[in-house]
Amino acid sequence: MRHYNVECVCTTDDPVDDLHNHIEYAKIRTEKDPLMIPAWRPDKAMNIEKPEFAKYVEQLAEVSGVNIVKFADMVDALKKRHEFFEQQGSKLSDHGIEEFYDEPYTDSQIETVFEKAMRGQQLSDYEVRQFKHCFLTVMAEMDADAGWTQQFHYGAIRDNNTAMYNQLGPDTGFDSIGEFNTAKAMSKFLNKLNMEGKLTRTIIYTLNPCANEVIATMLGNFQGGEPGKIQFGSGWWFNDQMDGMIRQMNALSVLGLLSRFVGMLTDSRSFLSYPRHEYFRRILCNLLGNDVEKGLLPDDRETLGRMVEDISYNNARRYFKFY
Amino acid sequence: MRHYNVECVCTTDDPVDDLHNHIEYAKIRTEKDPLMIPAWRPDKAMNIEKPEFAKYVEQLAEVSGVNIVKFADMVDALKKRHEFFEQQGSKLSDHGIEEFYDEPYTDSQIETVFEKAMRGQQLSDYEVRQFKHCFLTVMAEMDADAGWTQQFHYGAIRDNNTAMYNQLGPDTGFDSIGEFNTAKAMSKFLNKLNMEGKLTRTIIYTLNPCANEVIATMLGNFQGGEPGKIQFGSGWWFNDQMDGMIRQMNALSVLGLLSRFVGMLTDSRSFLSYPRHEYFRRILCNLLGNDVEKGLLPDDRETLGRMVEDISYNNARRYFKFY
Amino acid sequence: MRHYNVECVCTTDDPVDDLHNHIEYAKIRTEKDPLMIPAWRPDKAMNIEKPEFAKYVEQLAEVSGVNIVKFADMVDALKKRHEFFEQQGSKLSDHGIEEFYDEPYTDSQIETVFEKAMRGQQLSDYEVRQFKHCFLTVMAEMDADAGWTQQFHYGAIRDNNTAMYNQLGPDTGFDSIGEFNTAKAMSKFLNKLNMEGKLTRTIIYTLNPCANEVIATMLGNFQGGEPGKIQFGSGWWFNDQMDGMIRQMNALSVLGLLSRFVGMLTDSRSFLSYPRHEYFRRILCNLLGNDVEKGLLPDDRETLGRMVEDISYNNARRYFKFY
Repeated sequence: MRHYNVECVCTTDDPVDDLHNHIEYAKIRTEKDPLMIPAWRPDKAMNIEKPEFAKYVEQLAEVSGVNIVKFADMVDALKKRHEFFEQQGSKLSDHGIEEFYDEPYTDSQIETVFEKAMRGQQLSDYEVRQFKHCFLTVMAEMDADAGWTQQFHYGAIRDNNTAMYNQLGPDTGFDSIGEFNTAKAMSKFLNKLNMEGKLTRTIIYTLNPCANEVIATMLGNFQGGEPGKIQFGSGWWFNDQMDGMIRQMNALSVLGLLSRFVGMLTDSRSFLSYPRHEYFRRILCNLLGNDVEKGLLPDDRETLGRMVEDISYNNARRYFKFY
Repeated sequence: MRHYNVECVCTTDDPVDDLHNHIEYAKIRTEKDPLMIPAWRPDKAMNIEKPEFAKYVEQLAEVSGVNIVKFADMVDALKKRHEFFEQQGSKLSDHGIEEFYDEPYTDSQIETVFEKAMRGQQLSDYEVRQFKHCFLTVMAEMDADAGWTQQFHYGAIRDNNTAMYNQLGPDTGFDSIGEFNTAKAMSKFLNKLNMEGKLTRTIIYTLNPCANEVIATMLGNFQGGEPGKIQFGSGWWFNDQMDGMIRQMNALSVLGLLSRFVGMLTDSRSFLSYPRHEYFRRILCNLLGNDVEKGLLPDDRETLGRMVEDISYNNARRYFKFY
Repeated sequence: MRHYNVECVCTTDDPVDDLHNHIEYAKIRTEKDPLMIPAWRPDKAMNIEKPEFAKYVEQLAEVSGVNIVKFADMVDALKKRHEFFEQQGSKLSDHGIEEFYDEPYTDSQIETVFEKAMRGQQLSDYEVRQFKHCFLTVMAEMDADAGWTQQFHYGAIRDNNTAMYNQLGPDTGFDSIGEFNTAKAMSKFLNKLNMEGKLTRTIIYTLNPCANEVIATMLGNFQGGEPGKIQFGSGWWFNDQMDGMIRQMNALSVLGLLSRFVGMLTDSRSFLSYPRHEYFRRILCNLLGNDVEKGLLPDDRETLGRMVEDISYNNARRYFKFY
């Protein structure tokens, strides 16, 4: 990390994690060491359709010290953990979702769905979607209250190969790009938060590059308060290669504002993935350089150079407010 | 307009508009002045789900002198206005729709839906879609009978930001690109009209460039009678830039017939948007020139030059039959 | 065919075809003549919603000598024909579908749907989809048992122009590219077969190039047993041109493994379409050559040349196991 001049690294952590590595590292860290901050990824708390859900809620109850009988208790427990993450420096959340949800719900419906899940009863698709809609709203409000940045990674279909799932478990490489018409639900979700004054800084990543234009134009609906508040996340996962990165940046550039882009991110679970930033920066420079050669951009190295520096470093530093 | 050698400009007008500017301008217009023609855009008459609908119908009744009790009366009133537009030179209609509709309907169902809307009752999504399907069919038949050209602009999701809507009203910049699977409904709509002998010249514009290939191949299903009767509209709104224009033209070129393309249009509400035509023509020339350089097109300036002239001027002049 | 050095040609044949041309040709064929093998295309047996279905089942009963009362009998009849095709050298099936299906079904439900269709009763969309889901599963299992390769061509919407259909009949040029969100159903279909140990070599072709990324990433979920077992089919129909081929190959290259690609295929019904292979090979070479020029691929003619040879010839020869 020192070799790559890493200033700050955000890990991906579950709300039930005790973050003991973060706590120990903070004690021994010197000035020249990178900051290490947990990021909040509560997917297991959202995935109410999974058989592990009830057991996960028990774990959450234990680490938070909250007796979870109802969903409202679960929210209290998550709030405590959110505060605990904040104490360890966290300012960033992340959600892995198939698509955005806009099924209406009432508190009492959600409590019923929660009860059924805790008793191991089968939920309908609609109930699952209501719960996820509610859960993501609660999380978004929590992030807004804390002044964090929230991220949504959507569009994957996971664990497609049941035979390998049974052998190796979840998230072992048998995932692919899904197809979803989710623009309206995304819009309604962001709009509801915005109406409540609870729309915090938000980054949206799509796995299917066909949605690039949808996201690049969605941003503009909800900007305000600070520059580039709503962001189009960089080429993610399968798109984390030259073609995917270029398509994402071109869509953002022709439909939005490339100069405000907070740039590339590293998969925190891949400890050796820092060259990805170098790769990204070269692709960005190449993209701009090619446009200059074609006469599509002015050959103004100062302006373009500053833009590259902003996208590679300054924008993210200003945006995330990690330190 | 003289500076840009504008021969004819079509404005965008609501059926209730009295077109007094058109009438006055026609009186004072000299030979060297551009022709100014109204274009028929009855979105407000179609959007039965909007709270303003009933009030709009009243306005329509007043300007047309038709007592509107039923939807059939509304059609009579629209017919009178259509004829009035025709008298002012109109030969072109335009519809802003989210997607195409194929919900079956009967006349009596439509009358019920209309009654409910006029009484301010809540309509179901299905009823709204039935009404729009019927409305667009009636309009298409009217255009066919009058020998007009019809246009469909589809794929936007509008007014996403309710807070700004409440401050500034509709169509103030908080719109974005939507996602719709509408190819089958589009096909059925065009097919029904074609079976009735009521499919007039038609131009289809998509806001989501992912539908470029759908439209470029849809055209071929319904061509006939005159060359290029069904057209793929040029890059529209968010796509009204180099990348969007090139994608539209390439899709048309590889899947349809670029040489019949009626080319770029100006947003009539943006009085200073004529350079858009210049921009479009340069992109078109550049596209062809690059293909010549790559050896993908013959270096035959006469043929290619004629094609550019056709796309830039002759095709549209022949197609629209404005004068 | 000799001029083009064709070694083997697969025709497209209906299960009821008596294959007499194949049988006669096999008798007179010399060493220097290409092999001619039938390929199994049972679309008419799947399209239960078509008015011709009952009559088709009668034909199938006659040629197979099986008295078809139930769907189980139809499967027996198809099995006999499948064996007959195998005797004439067939090792390849093909299905033209709009999209993949995942509607659950029971044997008794399928028998009911079959009975209704045979009595000429109207089927619901859901019943049609259940039947197609079941039918494709049965066919896939038959192919797996026989060690054949199966192909799926999906994404077209056909016979859009009823007026021309009434004049000229089906498949006369009034088809276009459809829009389907079918990634999940595709995944479930392949997964079910894989779980049963009945997933044979499979090639998936999409008509809508927007699904390129979906397919290119779907492959990886189900690879195994032999290299490149699940294939992304080359640019098909409307995509059978430079732009479509390049997009397919680039998607495969950035998301999958181009080197295992079995390459281009000829439309067997277009007897003079062999230059399409030449066209494809030049586009492939050009694609690689351009990447070498840009410094994106090493200028290693031996490696790249071997890859071109594999994609153009060796991969297909190894994969299809025709001889």
